[in-house]
Amino acid sequence: MSAKSPAVRIEPLSPLLIEPAVRAALLEDLGRAGDITTEACVPPDATAHGVIAAREAGRIAGLDFALTAFRLLDPKIKVTVRAPDGADVEPGETIALIDGPARPILSAERVALNFLGHLSGVATATAKLVALVAGTKAHVVCTRKTTPGLRAFEKYAVRCGGGRNHRFGLDDAILIKDNHIVAAGGIKSAIEAARNHAGHTVHLEVEVDTLALLDEALTLGAHSILLDNMTPDQLREAVKRTAGAAILEASGNVTAQTITAIAATGVDLISSGAITHSAKNFDLGLDFKPV
Amino acid sequence: MSAKSPAVRIEPLSPLLIEPAVRAALLEDLGRAGDITTEACVPPDATAHGVIAAREAGRIAGLDFALTAFRLLDPKIKVTVRAPDGADVEPGETIALIDGPARPILSAERVALNFLGHLSGVATATAKLVALVAGTKAHVVCTRKTTPGLRAFEKYAVRCGGGRNHRFGLDDAILIKDNHIVAAGGIKSAIEAARNHAGHTVHLEVEVDTLALLDEALTLGAHSILLDNMTPDQLREAVKRTAGAAILEASGNVTAQTITAIAATGVDLISSGAITHSAKNFDLGLDFKPV
Amino acid sequence: MSAKSPAVRIEPLSPLLIEPAVRAALLEDLGRAGDITTEACVPPDATAHGVIAAREAGRIAGLDFALTAFRLLDPKIKVTVRAPDGADVEPGETIALIDGPARPILSAERVALNFLGHLSGVATATAKLVALVAGTKAHVVCTRKTTPGLRAFEKYAVRCGGGRNHRFGLDDAILIKDNHIVAAGGIKSAIEAARNHAGHTVHLEVEVDTLALLDEALTLGAHSILLDNMTPDQLREAVKRTAGAAILEASGNVTAQTITAIAATGVDLISSGAITHSAKNFDLGLDFKPV
Amino acid sequence: MSAKSPAVRIEPLSPLLIEPAVRAALLEDLGRAGDITTEACVPPDATAHGVIAAREAGRIAGLDFALTAFRLLDPKIKVTVRAPDGADVEPGETIALIDGPARPILSAERVALNFLGHLSGVATATAKLVALVAGTKAHVVCTRKTTPGLRAFEKYAVRCGGGRNHRFGLDDAILIKDNHIVAAGGIKSAIEAARNHAGHTVHLEVEVDTLALLDEALTLGAHSILLDNMTPDQLREAVKRTAGAAILEASGNVTAQTITAIAATGVDLISSGAITHSAKNFDLGLDFKPV
Amino acid sequence: MSAKSPAVRIEPLSPLLIEPAVRAALLEDLGRAGDITTEACVPPDATAHGVIAAREAGRIAGLDFALTAFRLLDPKIKVTVRAPDGADVEPGETIALIDGPARPILSAERVALNFLGHLSGVATATAKLVALVAGTKAHVVCTRKTTPGLRAFEKYAVRCGGGRNHRFGLDDAILIKDNHIVAAGGIKSAIEAARNHAGHTVHLEVEVDTLALLDEALTLGAHSILLDNMTPDQLREAVKRTAGAAILEASGNVTAQTITAIAATGVDLISSGAITHSAKNFDLGLDFKPV
Amino acid sequence: MSAKSPAVRIEPLSPLLIEPAVRAALLEDLGRAGDITTEACVPPDATAHGVIAAREAGRIAGLDFALTAFRLLDPKIKVTVRAPDGADVEPGETIALIDGPARPILSAERVALNFLGHLSGVATATAKLVALVAGTKAHVVCTRKTTPGLRAFEKYAVRCGGGRNHRFGLDDAILIKDNHIVAAGGIKSAIEAARNHAGHTVHLEVEVDTLALLDEALTLGAHSILLDNMTPDQLREAVKRTAGAAILEASGNVTAQTITAIAATGVDLISSGAITHSAKNFDLGLDFKPV
Repeated sequence: MSAKSPAVRIEPLSPLLIEPAVRAALLEDLGRAGDITTEACVPPDATAHGVIAAREAGRIAGLDFALTAFRLLDPKIKVTVRAPDGADVEPGETIALIDGPARPILSAERVALNFLGHLSGVATATAKLVALVAGTKAHVVCTRKTTPGLRAFEKYAVRCGGGRNHRFGLDDAILIKDNHIVAAGGIKSAIEAARNHAGHTVHLEVEVDTLALLDEALTLGAHSILLDNMTPDQLREAVKRTAGAAILEASGNVTAQTITAIAATGVDLISSGAITHSAKNFDLGLDFKPV
Repeated sequence: MSAKSPAVRIEPLSPLLIEPAVRAALLEDLGRAGDITTEACVPPDATAHGVIAAREAGRIAGLDFALTAFRLLDPKIKVTVRAPDGADVEPGETIALIDGPARPILSAERVALNFLGHLSGVATATAKLVALVAGTKAHVVCTRKTTPGLRAFEKYAVRCGGGRNHRFGLDDAILIKDNHIVAAGGIKSAIEAARNHAGHTVHLEVEVDTLALLDEALTLGAHSILLDNMTPDQLREAVKRTAGAAILEASGNVTAQTITAIAATGVDLISSGAITHSAKNFDLGLDFKPV
Repeated sequence: MSAKSPAVRIEPLSPLLIEPAVRAALLEDLGRAGDITTEACVPPDATAHGVIAAREAGRIAGLDFALTAFRLLDPKIKVTVRAPDGADVEPGETIALIDGPARPILSAERVALNFLGHLSGVATATAKLVALVAGTKAHVVCTRKTTPGLRAFEKYAVRCGGGRNHRFGLDDAILIKDNHIVAAGGIKSAIEAARNHAGHTVHLEVEVDTLALLDEALTLGAHSILLDNMTPDQLREAVKRTAGAAILEASGNVTAQTITAIAATGVDLISSGAITHSAKNFDLGLDFKPV
Repeated sequence: MSAKSPAVRIEPLSPLLIEPAVRAALLEDLGRAGDITTEACVPPDATAHGVIAAREAGRIAGLDFALTAFRLLDPKIKVTVRAPDGADVEPGETIALIDGPARPILSAERVALNFLGHLSGVATATAKLVALVAGTKAHVVCTRKTTPGLRAFEKYAVRCGGGRNHRFGLDDAILIKDNHIVAAGGIKSAIEAARNHAGHTVHLEVEVDTLALLDEALTLGAHSILLDNMTPDQLREAVKRTAGAAILEASGNVTAQTITAIAATGVDLISSGAITHSAKNFDLGLDFKPV
Repeated sequence: MSAKSPAVRIEPLSPLLIEPAVRAALLEDLGRAGDITTEACVPPDATAHGVIAAREAGRIAGLDFALTAFRLLDPKIKVTVRAPDGADVEPGETIALIDGPARPILSAERVALNFLGHLSGVATATAKLVALVAGTKAHVVCTRKTTPGLRAFEKYAVRCGGGRNHRFGLDDAILIKDNHIVAAGGIKSAIEAARNHAGHTVHLEVEVDTLALLDEALTLGAHSILLDNMTPDQLREAVKRTAGAAILEASGNVTAQTITAIAATGVDLISSGAITHSAKNFDLGLDFKPV
Repeated sequence: MSAKSPAVRIEPLSPLLIEPAVRAALLEDLGRAGDITTEACVPPDATAHGVIAAREAGRIAGLDFALTAFRLLDPKIKVTVRAPDGADVEPGETIALIDGPARPILSAERVALNFLGHLSGVATATAKLVALVAGTKAHVVCTRKTTPGLRAFEKYAVRCGGGRNHRFGLDDAILIKDNHIVAAGGIKSAIEAARNHAGHTVHLEVEVDTLALLDEALTLGAHSILLDNMTPDQLREAVKRTAGAAILEASGNVTAQTITAIAATGVDLISSGAITHSAKNFDLGLDFKPV
């Protein structure tokens, strides 16, 4: 039985980023006294054969986190991946096989599944929206509305879901919003200040909520324009007026019900906070099998 | 306008736990170059008056995280809490007022809202289940299915929602599950091993999925028994057989649709992973008001 | 020559807990410039054969810390354990053999011995008390009076000494003491507040110093009762009144001189701060032998 | 009632060193859930007046650690020091008064006392030896046999006890011991290698166990010579032969019984590992007083 | 005497970034035993009035680091800034006045000056190049050739010098170099792969060393083109061919001797590694004045 | 082709010191999103053969940092060192060969070269001064004027350059400067205070700027005397007066132009801040070669 292929191209995260997070999560779970249940009940030399299986359909993300959890507790644990990050699975489908000493498998189980369930949840929520815009030019993108401490990981899960990433933080792109415009004394002075201040690699995006402001932003040379809470008709008009002079991002009220119509307007990007901050945990479990 | 009272008694988390998490989240967002948008567009001496308001109904949790985010960027920011942790809010209701220098308010905003939205989401999901068991003796409890790095915070949010906490990690209570029983060679040897191994303050809970195993666990002196995936009829029979000799926890298939019937069986606890790992972000926003 | 067996069942500590502590201790000793004596005097290719031997009789604890110290400085160092954690040794007895490059052995020596001496000291102090209560039902337990930063390790050493662990921190059990009772307005309100507040896995222990308070605590349903500074006669009466309804812990004035009489009263637990905070370092040394 | 004066000149440790250690100790004690006993039983607005008092005679060290523990939990706690670091106290004597909110006082108590008891124990053990060499030129010095993680603090406590510090780590002085001499092929090549390797600020000490080796070390220009396990007669002869050409340190079998005789030989320093690694915890307590 | 104005607009770095670096540097200097010279020689109550003055002409950067060093050792130290970050100073000119307790001023001095000298050195080197391109459209930009651990700070110093920042790391812009082109099988596939992979906020720059490759990069839609080691004639031709379709960056052999001619070609940016990795320390000192 | 030999004896730094610094530098460069250029353009299975070569003449230092950077990103990368730390290289000479997977080599390249270039720059600057004092008894020594966070590494590079190290921090030797003397009320009271305060391993150095103060310092028993900003004639006189009774260090205005004359005066040490704080980056590059 060979492993599945991912549905999208996935570039793995660096272990330098993954390992500290998994180590911290293991310590959070082990506490000061460690896994007292397993130590009490499970003989040191017991071995186990476990199966991580999906309990619903979805897109997998986060296996390297699970692997790292098992490896950090015992390098002798062998993990065989069946459905790698980026792969779609059906309910009941095997994601990975776990073989090795029973104690560290049991002690790492919850941390491994918490990462895998959370990130697969993000990937699955993303993949659902991505599927709904298939055939259009629109990309689904995430936001900075991420779980504290997990931003790089959730953005990775978005990529596993076929989405694209918006900026990773306050420092890697300029995004001028309403409050900035007010404080700067108008969209013109805000954009000009930004252009004067930014290095040449810094992308300049402006949020607008009217077509008049869109026109102004285009004139002032914004690279991207975030169209906030516009109707499909407004979006269609925005696409027409922009005529490729800037990247257009639709935002606000993006759901499975609305996204197809939004994508049909011709915008380049549709952003969603929900795919990161409100994704349901992907349901999966680790069951021991008789050897 | 005076502040609301919380719906449940809330003991605040220690700043020693909160501050490092908020600091890390701010650094995650500021990156290497800081908030380049605000620096470019907003004058250093601009001040702002903002309102954090609910955009849906729910239970608040996490204000100390938001306050810490603002304070760490500028102690001169003044936050006036209207709806404290544990309070219920309606859509549009003011949660807190933010006054002070505009720049650090803008730079801290996303981190503040990410914590507040996430934890209020957990509290709201919990409060919904708690309301559905009102009038019964059942408490809603959380699990170890939490977001990596946020366990103590999500468990705090569960308390804000009126729920109770199960164990915080692998080290502060024994919970013998199926795999442990298999590895120990039976429920009897598992429980006896646990009793011999544990310190006197360690609580001993055993998971069973049949009434026969329940009987055995009761005989062996478990303090609590987790009844996994039982029907209401089975649960009712379990309550009858136990007759107060142990604490009974119902688990599995716990939803808003099922929980009232489960609670009616007379169990002491109903545990839910969804209230922590799948809670939808609570919708709120920070809007600047004209001064 | 085969290794000895431990006198008690020992579950090893997780390397996730041990390694950071040993790494920090090595850095504390190496400072900014490293082991300038060894670098100056010992040729890089020198090898050594060393013996860690006891210089007094006692119980061993902490070998994994010593092993980690050597491994972190050079994985090529080979350590052969003769007397593992939990084993009793006589003066002059070999604890472990160290073979490998001389430089890292010399550089790690002090850190390895500091951990091993300190933890074996705790284990030895514990084992002495444990031996004095042999034949009774009483267990020797430790307290939170531990060396800052070393609590989990000293509690492990107590287990190596045959003792049991009391709670690990303020968060994993309730222990109501005099000051709490005063602040709560009486033992009744204190215990009731605790019962209302605590999760179901939280053990509830109450400290009393009179038999009248014992009676009250029993009525209120405390799981354990700490009998503070009572005479053997009082303890015997407490055991009689309790009749198994709660776990009884004797505390105060516990020494090698008094512990046997205390144990004879029938209490379940005897707690000692001295086994962790005042244990004499176990005397041992690392001597190089001619190869 | 004014504060006492210290018996020796004390330079306070930098808060940069103290605060991280106290913070870590508080987190070790608070765990994930915090002080659940105090939260449950003590009203948020309760205040307390406590007294930290000695329960035996001794020398105080570590008050800044205790103060930091209280301050980190609540800056409103007021601590009034009666017997500062370096002061001698009698049984029952007040060391400090603690006033403020009851909850954080109770939560910080154990950590504050653990530091204060441990460091005062080291200071007291040191002061006992120092008193026994009064009237001689000998200084009592400590070693690198310290508790892992606490070296700078225990060395500070030694100073509070009137002792002096030997080197702080492997990097701030050269100390050539037997094993180094063997590995270097003799005392001559060892000392010459050290002199060639070391920077000009690096002190060079050599351990010898015979008078013949002492002569050789003197010829080779060692700054200090550690006389290991010599009898008083040997030490007296060593002092005579050295005639001030090097600092002489006596080591080995240093106890309250032997130290006066050793000091009488005219050596400059007497080193003891026991004052740091085997000091008994100084007995003290925090009692709440009626306000 | 009022403070000078900076020569360029400076946005201060967040204290969240500065404080940990200064704290680490202070601990690096204080070591385990602290400032033993000052403790020995300077009375605790001594006060001092010091002047930080320039010993050469240059541009100031890093005062917040110096202020933080003094504040962390004693908040009572008062620092009055005369020449803020971004200001030009002459030899002998006062940069800041330091008043307060003498001990912490002396203990923080070296760390304060090390930061201030290093960052002012970077600012001064940058300002020299910036002055040489005055009157052209060219901006001086830095690279990733920075001192490990100090990137954000050195990039800040470049801004103080009037320069602009290139990308801050591997993650905030794409820069395709020779090796990437080889590995990708040509410039076309490299740029296309980058465009397909990157989020919409990611800037795409390509390094070329011939005009033919420039043409290709322009056709493929690179946002910026790095012209490596080209002669002024080649650069002039590149500017002509590009005609504003991309940002042009000249790199290689950029010195005070060559930069004016390079700027005259009409390129947009001139990058220099030397301004960060080879900037001479700016010479300054802290002298105590009689009060 | 075999590796060169170092020009001076080099003792390697402990990996315990190197690895955290390299890990932090990699994370500083990778940021939140990693090496997006390499991920986009370079196939995962591409391999590369690279050469790190000198682009100028100089002394190498820091190869273990470069090796660690490559190893941390991928242990499969093979590095073959041709010119080890302490070796002199000519322009164009190969320093090391790098073979292995192309992606991690590209991602680690900048961090590896930043360390190697910086430390080789320090070593080269040191070696130049060392060569200029050849044939005299003078050693070139560094100061505490180092780059924040890199002190131990720059001091190591000084040793690679053939220099010697002065003290590593404020805690490992006493150095009484002008300000201390003023605060102590004169050189006599300063030196006496220092002698009374310091442990026996602590070296005592005093800075003087007149011959009269030199005489006083000699009388008071300073171990070393720093002669600040003296002319060669004054230095010669100082050497004569001292007559070997203390170590003499010349400081101030030490350049390639002046150092030979200073060394000719007979001083023992010549200290330079410039070799650490103003060393030009050593020019080197990593070029991929066709396999």
